[in-house]
Amino acid sequence: MIIVIKDNIRTDDYERIKKYISERGGRVHESEGIEKRIIGVIGEERHLDRTAIAALPGVEKVIPIVEPYKLASRKFHPKNTIVNVKGVKIGGIDPVVIAGPCSVESEKQIWEIAEELSKKKAHILRGGIFKPRSSPYTFQGIGEPGIMWLAESARHYNLPVVSEVMEISDIDVLYDHIDIFQVGARNMQNFKLLKALGKTDKPILLKRGISATFSEFLMSAEYILAEGNEKVILCERGIRTFVEFTRNTFDVNIIPVVKKSTHLPIIIDPSHATGRSDIITPITLAGLAAGADGFMVEVHPRPFEAFSDGNQSLNFEQFTQLLDDWNVLKDAVITLRKKTNEEVLTACI
Amino acid sequence: MIIVIKDNIRTDDYERIKKYISERGGRVHESEGIEKRIIGVIGEERHLDRTAIAALPGVEKVIPIVEPYKLASRKFHPKNTIVNVKGVKIGGIDPVVIAGPCSVESEKQIWEIAEELSKKKAHILRGGIFKPRSSPYTFQGIGEPGIMWLAESARHYNLPVVSEVMEISDIDVLYDHIDIFQVGARNMQNFKLLKALGKTDKPILLKRGISATFSEFLMSAEYILAEGNEKVILCERGIRTFVEFTRNTFDVNIIPVVKKSTHLPIIIDPSHATGRSDIITPITLAGLAAGADGFMVEVHPRPFEAFSDGNQSLNFEQFTQLLDDWNVLKDAVITLRKKTNEEVLTACI
Amino acid sequence: MIIVIKDNIRTDDYERIKKYISERGGRVHESEGIEKRIIGVIGEERHLDRTAIAALPGVEKVIPIVEPYKLASRKFHPKNTIVNVKGVKIGGIDPVVIAGPCSVESEKQIWEIAEELSKKKAHILRGGIFKPRSSPYTFQGIGEPGIMWLAESARHYNLPVVSEVMEISDIDVLYDHIDIFQVGARNMQNFKLLKALGKTDKPILLKRGISATFSEFLMSAEYILAEGNEKVILCERGIRTFVEFTRNTFDVNIIPVVKKSTHLPIIIDPSHATGRSDIITPITLAGLAAGADGFMVEVHPRPFEAFSDGNQSLNFEQFTQLLDDWNVLKDAVITLRKKTNEEVLTACI
Amino acid sequence: MIIVIKDNIRTDDYERIKKYISERGGRVHESEGIEKRIIGVIGEERHLDRTAIAALPGVEKVIPIVEPYKLASRKFHPKNTIVNVKGVKIGGIDPVVIAGPCSVESEKQIWEIAEELSKKKAHILRGGIFKPRSSPYTFQGIGEPGIMWLAESARHYNLPVVSEVMEISDIDVLYDHIDIFQVGARNMQNFKLLKALGKTDKPILLKRGISATFSEFLMSAEYILAEGNEKVILCERGIRTFVEFTRNTFDVNIIPVVKKSTHLPIIIDPSHATGRSDIITPITLAGLAAGADGFMVEVHPRPFEAFSDGNQSLNFEQFTQLLDDWNVLKDAVITLRKKTNEEVLTACI
Repeated sequence: MIIVIKDNIRTDDYERIKKYISERGGRVHESEGIEKRIIGVIGEERHLDRTAIAALPGVEKVIPIVEPYKLASRKFHPKNTIVNVKGVKIGGIDPVVIAGPCSVESEKQIWEIAEELSKKKAHILRGGIFKPRSSPYTFQGIGEPGIMWLAESARHYNLPVVSEVMEISDIDVLYDHIDIFQVGARNMQNFKLLKALGKTDKPILLKRGISATFSEFLMSAEYILAEGNEKVILCERGIRTFVEFTRNTFDVNIIPVVKKSTHLPIIIDPSHATGRSDIITPITLAGLAAGADGFMVEVHPRPFEAFSDGNQSLNFEQFTQLLDDWNVLKDAVITLRKKTNEEVLTACI
Repeated sequence: MIIVIKDNIRTDDYERIKKYISERGGRVHESEGIEKRIIGVIGEERHLDRTAIAALPGVEKVIPIVEPYKLASRKFHPKNTIVNVKGVKIGGIDPVVIAGPCSVESEKQIWEIAEELSKKKAHILRGGIFKPRSSPYTFQGIGEPGIMWLAESARHYNLPVVSEVMEISDIDVLYDHIDIFQVGARNMQNFKLLKALGKTDKPILLKRGISATFSEFLMSAEYILAEGNEKVILCERGIRTFVEFTRNTFDVNIIPVVKKSTHLPIIIDPSHATGRSDIITPITLAGLAAGADGFMVEVHPRPFEAFSDGNQSLNFEQFTQLLDDWNVLKDAVITLRKKTNEEVLTACI
Repeated sequence: MIIVIKDNIRTDDYERIKKYISERGGRVHESEGIEKRIIGVIGEERHLDRTAIAALPGVEKVIPIVEPYKLASRKFHPKNTIVNVKGVKIGGIDPVVIAGPCSVESEKQIWEIAEELSKKKAHILRGGIFKPRSSPYTFQGIGEPGIMWLAESARHYNLPVVSEVMEISDIDVLYDHIDIFQVGARNMQNFKLLKALGKTDKPILLKRGISATFSEFLMSAEYILAEGNEKVILCERGIRTFVEFTRNTFDVNIIPVVKKSTHLPIIIDPSHATGRSDIITPITLAGLAAGADGFMVEVHPRPFEAFSDGNQSLNFEQFTQLLDDWNVLKDAVITLRKKTNEEVLTACI
Repeated sequence: MIIVIKDNIRTDDYERIKKYISERGGRVHESEGIEKRIIGVIGEERHLDRTAIAALPGVEKVIPIVEPYKLASRKFHPKNTIVNVKGVKIGGIDPVVIAGPCSVESEKQIWEIAEELSKKKAHILRGGIFKPRSSPYTFQGIGEPGIMWLAESARHYNLPVVSEVMEISDIDVLYDHIDIFQVGARNMQNFKLLKALGKTDKPILLKRGISATFSEFLMSAEYILAEGNEKVILCERGIRTFVEFTRNTFDVNIIPVVKKSTHLPIIIDPSHATGRSDIITPITLAGLAAGADGFMVEVHPRPFEAFSDGNQSLNFEQFTQLLDDWNVLKDAVITLRKKTNEEVLTACI
């Protein structure tokens, strides 16, 4: 890290800064410019508290140089992580298709959808059992009765299942019935939940928080990785901005940056990233063209009967159109993915 | 709510919308403008799912008219809620001073701070036992050993205590030892935690999420209120914006808007709202002048030894200066608070 | 528009609102819900001042229903606008490639680049003569000497040229030498400049302001259209958000929304939308997959010698790679564009 | 500046970076950490182009150390700048009150307002002649006929006048009739306008752009200062965020940061910073408590008849209440201002 020194620092304060660093195992590297004096700190800085150093008298600011994440970094793990869920590979050459309702609502509903996915050769079924909702007066998820409907319809059609956990106790309840635990955007920094998930052996689909920076997102992955679970799948689902014409702003820029900086797969959630079923198709294609390892969309047989997220759910006809359009683009995208993959590996090794 | 109809809607789609509303207990009020046709829905709209209606063919968009919160609204509860914590009144005429370390670090540290607060006549002691941290490699809070240090130092100096709960199980652990449960910004939408806190009989200090809208913030309060706990204290602690010179942007505008729309008290957290100890004083004064019911600041005897948030913690000298400046302004602010309070009550009754 | 009435309105204030609307040519449509009373105003609302109505005693808020733009709307102009620049069609089936340096720096530099574009079959040359720079101490553009270098190199290679105007007097200076006037993001709401450009007969490339909403962006186009110039090309170049890993956040969502709501072409500027040459290629492909009518990139023979924007400029090798990747995707994208185009027209007519 | 080197840099690329810096007059200071190698560049960095250096092969990123502004910096000009406008001192101990209509609308209107200001002892009259409006269909300002109404009413009541210039030609038109040129938020980066204003001898009221960072704001001031005009008054008028309950978010944090970093006065515009007349008073007081050198509010005898900004204009009764509340706080604020002023000077000298 770089410590920028205040112009009018007293000599004893300056000496104290150097002593402070040395005592904590850092090596001090001084440098004096025309306007500013700086101290470079050499050593493992992930365990030093920057905010404490910034509080030393005479320090103007502290600038980190090293990324705060390590296990998630491509530097220490050059090859792509490929997460294998019952034979479906996330992070490989073929992008995966994950679809299903925002919420499991009834036995009939989830079986209808599972059948549709199976027909259309989608790879993974999603379905919410526990739902975080802004209002206490709206549908809060079907809860436990829905678990078996979800699990059995998925098993019947041979589809792996992803569902959200909202708190630690949900892990046990869902463990035997689903294949991927999803962490929702609101829980991206629920660190105790992340640690508990890091101790399981199932893949974790980690959604980016609505206003998470890159390093906050990666550090949340790091919480899971640090507990020993290497099967983390990132998910970009839109960020909150001033923009008024979509529910969120899809930050497509993050996809190639994730690919460069980390080895983890990243998928997209165009349903939340737009909040509008009428633009889900072009935005899905955009994400895939930018290098996403798959997409997850909300699908409902009759969105206007949905208990939640009706306006961003595709009906079966719209879902078919999305897949048709994706099929037009798919071969070209795969050609590009092969090429990019080689470049990344070459750059790393 | 108002349903804006698409220009080229088919007759059967239009009839379906009206039927859909009527069947769900809404009364339909049609209106045709030069460019747009709209349908006003009359009835209790908090239980209707707007996103489902927006998914009906022919609907362009749905605009809510009624605020989503009810128990938090001043409309249904005109008088200010005053939360009494062992004799300290939050939401009354006198603003409260809450101070203490980001984290309890040692027995010595918390006793030093409690003594200082007592000397300076601050009202409430804060201290983190469980700490949500972006990085798994940094200090995660002292955990259970610190609870007794915090509780005993507070009892000795006769100070009520506030501390953060990160998950449901923390409630029981802290229940006997603290007076106010704090919900951190990252947990503002941890709805299961909110419900569990709503079932307790202790005051809840609810921090605004880093990118929470007004109605999301109030709806999180509503989760607690709906479970029967009326002692909710709101806290503005800065929002995330593009701004680069402070850690967060202090949204002072929310203070008078909270006062107008709700009956709940609102305090400010200038430490997080700025992230810079050098501007905490003017920002605290700004919040109080805007009508805040108190402030909570991070104080540490030696911020450069703090395990977390050192750069936004005040040392004892800075804390004294803050209180001195506040004392200069206090009488005038109290005069204004008395006047505003009367106006609000007159407007309400 | 919808006028939401305050709960405790006095009868004479309510009557005044109705009278106020009627006197200004609006028709009043009253509606009373359980919690709220509203008034729908029927009539041409673009000329009524919403902020004045909101200031009437007893008005809680005013909600617009009709889009504020008219000439830009697809409703009044269902077919795509195709801008023809010396035979290059922007807004047609084939996306256009616009490239060139951030700034024209020397005669040699611009000729080198024009030659490269010609070799690679790019369609249009860009080059800044007048440069808006945040700092008065940095390069402010080569100014008038560069105009002839730009114009002559372009003419030699038969490339149309686009260059930025910063103020009204620049229009005359550049008029004879360039083919498209560019309005930079910082000038998107320089309304006098927009009006002056609306009076010319050349196409206008209008960049979205760094924090422009959809309707602000379209209203700036409307300024140009209202003066009689129908040749407006929109450009998404990234918005300012809290995100730290790119210079701006590329708002790809706007592309399909523009296509639905307006008839104007929209291109993308991945150089500014990312600020990082290392991710320009995937982001360009994302924008094209989402439906953009073309892209504009900064290209420089030696970016580290560039006078501005070096870090987001492609060198010739990177530019070639971008075009190679685009060629992999192009046929599929064109297939999709043909299909989308038909759908839009069918929906409109 | 600090150059962070890529992990896998080739030796010749590394040497080239050092040579590149040396050739341009920089001194190179190398430093190698455990994970990262960095180069410190010592020398005047305001004239080096960071983006070009970032484009050198092997450079990961470039981090500036020195602030980009110089003339605006308190470092080079320790004492407060006090702008004297016909005897009204902006930046001194007493905060100034600037008020008037968004737009001059009629002779009667501006005389009514000037009279009211005079009665209430406000210091400066504001009034828009040329108005930047998002829509070409709304009122664009009264234009030249209003100039004499504004100037004469102001002269009659002995009030200095501030009015906005939208383009260079407006400077001459207004020069003889007003005392302060205002640069609106949309024009904060209209650099040619700033340069032209820098050549005049009148004070410039520079509003912060709606999404301007601190350094962009100061650099725009620097444009004016660099031309020789030292009478720059900064104005915080709210920034654009995700927040939905106010028109803009008032960034009160910027006030003490401006005071620390620069010597220029800063006033606030609570009308635009809130967009709601019902919260202007508490927000004005907040800004003054934070250290603002004055405030500018929109006042109109009948806001519902205003041609623009009616919902954020105060009527005379509300304006009186604002001044009454300010009077309650004023003495305390002045006491604090005197103390802060001394501290700043002591710190500087």
